[in-house]
Amino acid sequence: MKNFEYKNPTKILFGEGQIASLNNEIPENAKVMLLYGGGSIKRNGIYEQVKAALHQRDTVEFGGIPANPEYEILLKALNEIKEEKVDYLLAVGGGSVIDGVKFLAAAALYEGEEPWDILAKNIGRDVGLPFGTVLTLPATGTEMNSFSVISRAETKEKLGMSGLGLFPQFSILDPKVVHSIPKRQIANGIVDAFNHVMEQYITYPANANLQDRIAEGILQTLIEVGPKVMNDPTDYNAAANFMWSCTMALNGLIQNGVPGDWAVHMMGHELTALHQIDHARTLAIIGPNHYKYNFENKKEKLTQFGERVWNITEGTMDEKAQKAIEHTIAFYHQLEVPTKLSEYTENYKGSSQFIVDQFTKRGWTGIGERGDLTPDDVKKIVEMSY
Amino acid sequence: MKNFEYKNPTKILFGEGQIASLNNEIPENAKVMLLYGGGSIKRNGIYEQVKAALHQRDTVEFGGIPANPEYEILLKALNEIKEEKVDYLLAVGGGSVIDGVKFLAAAALYEGEEPWDILAKNIGRDVGLPFGTVLTLPATGTEMNSFSVISRAETKEKLGMSGLGLFPQFSILDPKVVHSIPKRQIANGIVDAFNHVMEQYITYPANANLQDRIAEGILQTLIEVGPKVMNDPTDYNAAANFMWSCTMALNGLIQNGVPGDWAVHMMGHELTALHQIDHARTLAIIGPNHYKYNFENKKEKLTQFGERVWNITEGTMDEKAQKAIEHTIAFYHQLEVPTKLSEYTENYKGSSQFIVDQFTKRGWTGIGERGDLTPDDVKKIVEMSY
Repeated sequence: MKNFEYKNPTKILFGEGQIASLNNEIPENAKVMLLYGGGSIKRNGIYEQVKAALHQRDTVEFGGIPANPEYEILLKALNEIKEEKVDYLLAVGGGSVIDGVKFLAAAALYEGEEPWDILAKNIGRDVGLPFGTVLTLPATGTEMNSFSVISRAETKEKLGMSGLGLFPQFSILDPKVVHSIPKRQIANGIVDAFNHVMEQYITYPANANLQDRIAEGILQTLIEVGPKVMNDPTDYNAAANFMWSCTMALNGLIQNGVPGDWAVHMMGHELTALHQIDHARTLAIIGPNHYKYNFENKKEKLTQFGERVWNITEGTMDEKAQKAIEHTIAFYHQLEVPTKLSEYTENYKGSSQFIVDQFTKRGWTGIGERGDLTPDDVKKIVEMSY
Repeated sequence: MKNFEYKNPTKILFGEGQIASLNNEIPENAKVMLLYGGGSIKRNGIYEQVKAALHQRDTVEFGGIPANPEYEILLKALNEIKEEKVDYLLAVGGGSVIDGVKFLAAAALYEGEEPWDILAKNIGRDVGLPFGTVLTLPATGTEMNSFSVISRAETKEKLGMSGLGLFPQFSILDPKVVHSIPKRQIANGIVDAFNHVMEQYITYPANANLQDRIAEGILQTLIEVGPKVMNDPTDYNAAANFMWSCTMALNGLIQNGVPGDWAVHMMGHELTALHQIDHARTLAIIGPNHYKYNFENKKEKLTQFGERVWNITEGTMDEKAQKAIEHTIAFYHQLEVPTKLSEYTENYKGSSQFIVDQFTKRGWTGIGERGDLTPDDVKKIVEMSY
């Protein structure tokens, strides 16, 4: 097991009716900014619940934070935070809204001239305005970590960051929000969480028995409840287990003491940028081919994954590992998520060169758990995914 | 799944050499009190590592905190904390030292006349002096929770408490400390952690699929690495997985959204009080008989436990559940932990009536996950354990 440090101070309030608990978590005299996305919260009743829970608190609103939260839009919110002397942020939404609010929390206290430097220069992340979240879309795990990814159209940049000031003070997870999520988004959430685990689990072995078991437990739960919640999003226990699995997949716990790969995410991000394919779906496209390409390096964990998660008992180690990949692809298909790039776009052919060019432009000479996947390896993996 | 709230702000520093990280966690200008137990840390090199890591910090020491930390002794430490104007506590030890320091953290800021009221009247626990821990004996999980149990010989009381002020700021878990732990104590740690999981897992079903999987993962890991670490405490990976499993067994995570039983602990505590049997061993005595006695109520989870943790594939549900109990007993025996009260004392016969009398004196009419185990049930379970 590798050495690790772990601290996660976010308070989770989980379950039906917990939105009302907002009232206990935000100071009564706070000046609150309520931030949200495209407005679905006004159609599904979540907005009304949040407003009721805020009672008489002095509140301003900022809606319209888009998927892949955009810097220029966030700057408008930042301006309003300062003008209105807001001292508490409340994100009501999915990963994009919450990520955007994390940036705003840091930016509100940042004294430099250019808030983009928080992302570009790794500064100003240790403190932030206090903020909480009401999660409306289980998927990214951002509700219980300090990661955030912000996009900037002007410069075509998309940068990630983390820092002590970026943990939500609290996050409210009410599985009833799953009722009104479109099936396609539920599938995305399942695949996203599944791949978050895979990036921390399908690596070289690290003698972290317990972390492996927990990773396997999250995968098993997603396999168990994923199709149920797709079939009936009002199945409360299925929705609750789906929601908690998404949070646990990326709250830092299973990363403790083990290597992280994250190459699938790095390739997937480029497919989203190039073809506007949903993030989770790019992971379903790249992931299985990444495992096939790096089979020798990953086959011990793939075999363990096959035996423990997919209950494969027959065959040699190599056969079990191969079957585990096939089962994973079949699972994505069961969730109605295609796994070939050509199923998403006709213009797939230049994708591998585009990605290699992007990586080269950024100076990335090696990615993955050992940092030894070259641009040429990446090219081949992407082409296997056509 | 039941609703839950979860927050655990303790920072974990895990791995070989982490004791040196003390230097980054405790303010340089802190006035530190270093607290420890019987002095084994001076024989195994941990004391020297801690002193070196504290560098030039102004430090006073308080040794001699006994197993079942005693109120009268803690009052002496409290006096010294106040006289010396100590503002940071550092517990170097196992569960008793850390539990004692949690009490002192609260007591140091308590303004009432009688510090015992913190325990007896549930007050003064929300704030405490900052404190950190260096864990020397994996078992109780106290290094990453806010629970503490304090004894008072004068009044024959033993009271538990928890509170927001009782979380360690940091805990250092260096698996190398396991090298010098006597085999008997390692066995106790494994059995203690195993039973912490069982109290939160072998209950009525609660549709908490992920929590069940994580609980099963901890049990499987303890089964896997327990005998290895008993056999060779210098096996670093076995020790590391043992240590992290003990922490994860009682840091609140697997209790989220599920019922807790804790009846085995309540009966076990009385056996320790009456016969001075090690805490963990009382759990090995009572646990299996508790499951046998409450078989109908617990058989769904016992069957799941048998199938998933012990890999039992043959037989009816009842047979699998019974076999799971037998496997558990065999595991305790493999760790050289006897499971009958009569193997610990000749004077076992009055134990059931003693426990019933104690429970009655305290007004406990029903215990367990449903609060429906009567003193008469308790009497029968204890007698099954003779």
